Amino acid sequence: MKGKPVVTVRDVAERAGVHPATVSRVLNPSRRHLISDTTARRVSQAAEELGYQANSMARGLRMRQSFTIGVLIPDLTNPLFPPMVRGIEDYLHPLGYTALLSNTDSEPDRERRGLDALTARQVDGFVIAPTSSGFPLVKAMIRDGVPVVLVNRSIDGVQGFAVTPDDRRGAASAVEHLIALGHRSIAHVSGPRDLSPGEERYRGFLETIREHGLTPSEELVAFANAFTGGAGVRPTQELLDRGENFTAVFAGNDLLALDVIDTLKASGLSCPHDVSVIGFNDMPYAGRFDPPLTTIRFSHYEIGRRAAEMLLSQIAGDRSPPRTLILSTELITRGSTAAPPIASHRSGSTRRSATPH
Amino acid sequence: MKGKPVVTVRDVAERAGVHPATVSRVLNPSRRHLISDTTARRVSQAAEELGYQANSMARGLRMRQSFTIGVLIPDLTNPLFPPMVRGIEDYLHPLGYTALLSNTDSEPDRERRGLDALTARQVDGFVIAPTSSGFPLVKAMIRDGVPVVLVNRSIDGVQGFAVTPDDRRGAASAVEHLIALGHRSIAHVSGPRDLSPGEERYRGFLETIREHGLTPSEELVAFANAFTGGAGVRPTQELLDRGENFTAVFAGNDLLALDVIDTLKASGLSCPHDVSVIGFNDMPYAGRFDPPLTTIRFSHYEIGRRAAEMLLSQIAGDRSPPRTLILSTELITRGSTAAPPIASHRSGSTRRSATPH
Repeated sequence: MKGKPVVTVRDVAERAGVHPATVSRVLNPSRRHLISDTTARRVSQAAEELGYQANSMARGLRMRQSFTIGVLIPDLTNPLFPPMVRGIEDYLHPLGYTALLSNTDSEPDRERRGLDALTARQVDGFVIAPTSSGFPLVKAMIRDGVPVVLVNRSIDGVQGFAVTPDDRRGAASAVEHLIALGHRSIAHVSGPRDLSPGEERYRGFLETIREHGLTPSEELVAFANAFTGGAGVRPTQELLDRGENFTAVFAGNDLLALDVIDTLKASGLSCPHDVSVIGFNDMPYAGRFDPPLTTIRFSHYEIGRRAAEMLLSQIAGDRSPPRTLILSTELITRGSTAAPPIASHRSGSTRRSATPH
Repeated sequence: MKGKPVVTVRDVAERAGVHPATVSRVLNPSRRHLISDTTARRVSQAAEELGYQANSMARGLRMRQSFTIGVLIPDLTNPLFPPMVRGIEDYLHPLGYTALLSNTDSEPDRERRGLDALTARQVDGFVIAPTSSGFPLVKAMIRDGVPVVLVNRSIDGVQGFAVTPDDRRGAASAVEHLIALGHRSIAHVSGPRDLSPGEERYRGFLETIREHGLTPSEELVAFANAFTGGAGVRPTQELLDRGENFTAVFAGNDLLALDVIDTLKASGLSCPHDVSVIGFNDMPYAGRFDPPLTTIRFSHYEIGRRAAEMLLSQIAGDRSPPRTLILSTELITRGSTAAPPIASHRSGSTRRSATPH
């Protein structure tokens, strides 16, 4: 902005007690590996304290870098994304990078336009949670050598960098929790299978049901079209309409779990009294809900941090082969799961009367 | 992206059944007013359907426009901002604009850097919810003629465009609700007064207390440092430590209200049995909390839409004087407010025993 005293590389160097060339190296990702972490940190801190702000356009032209990262998010109103964004930004910020976000609203057209806008603004790389229709765009970017890290999902057949939770193992621990409570007839409201969390959690569900000698029934699985709030109503209604006897539901994520609870309630079934419900994500405020939501937790913040780290190392020229970092999950037991009703003779037509008193 | 067939202005014109010059006018904000809304809509739709994507850098250079809007948000994890962003994007999208977001985390340094990054990327204007330390930057931008619309707050002494809720009237209806329930001793956990929502809601509180013949007591007001989750703990503890008899709390926003409820609970006081609590915002999921949160609602989505509309009209060259659009609020009565305990002889040291059974 205008009128501010200009802070130079020389000022930063003086403050940090290093040679100006060292400052330049620290601020240049492709040379940063030449400098020790301690020194890099001292330089970054001095730059912060002095309010050093390189002219990013000039610097970008010189280094062919904009020091800006594009972050594409499918649904900002899904409360798991804001902590992820914070993780990304907390990693980028001390290194002099800024994140620009685009909310794609899970619409292919907005996703394409967001990518185009960020590409046109010459960001140095992308952290993306793509929709399935965005997969071809992302594949093309990776093929063209654009630095990309996927978060929360991987793309079949693509050798790319990704950070995801352990969806399969998380689903298994959800189902194991329900089995340990005494449930034998467990339904699954799955997310869409064209996204890896949908597919992986569905597989984790099936495998665990089989491992415990229960018969997996197709009748006990229904698929939502999306992972967004509201998308869980129709599949839950389908399960109810089929007249299956289930005493517990594993939902593909927390937003779907809330839909399950609401749809059950509208049919006169209470959670956890009649039906236990477990979600996935441990979204903010999940412990404040009535009933408090039992769920599978993983750190969205950590996903963001790790993705940013992976991306910057690509940008800095690291040529190691693509890898997927899988973060572990944790069962969070709260009030939405309990032992099944003692007499479980419910059927589609007499659900209400069959619940114990 | 590579390999896509290039859609030209001529293709769009043919599809929309208009002259190519009309398409150019529709896509050029400073000339769009020359075209009727119906025609503009038809052209936009044709452009969408064909996947028309002007080379935004080339177009930007030609028109000195990037068709990109910068959105600066202080705290993405505050759940009121995502719906606002959606409102902004829903307005921009059909008009061919893209929003790039920067999450400032309420940190002056990140705010400055976010502004710099977006300015360097040549966005056409900004929608900003600034921190108080960002006010000088925003003032400078407005002085320099940068198109800016403030959301959720106004800046004292600045003639700028803004869209805000009716904070004063909303606060009044919160306090009136508590008084109608029978409360006479009403405390206020206020947001910071250097932000207009903090100041306005505090004033609305005081005025309403006075209007109803109650004596406003400084002892019944405590100020939080921020509007973020966790910031309401200390001021609530202060109120408790002062030993004041209050049966209700009006909190500056919902996140502070949740802190109030938790802090009361830690002192053995239950909401709404011992103390009623009302918030402000009607954040997502507020109706699912235990207890469901009574609050003041306004449409964050609408704030976003209106701000985007105001901004684009500035960008299009509208030179009408700055104005603030004030959206009305609505009381949402839920379970966190109730009549006060019948015998209200609580004191700081014997709070627990004095509550009725």
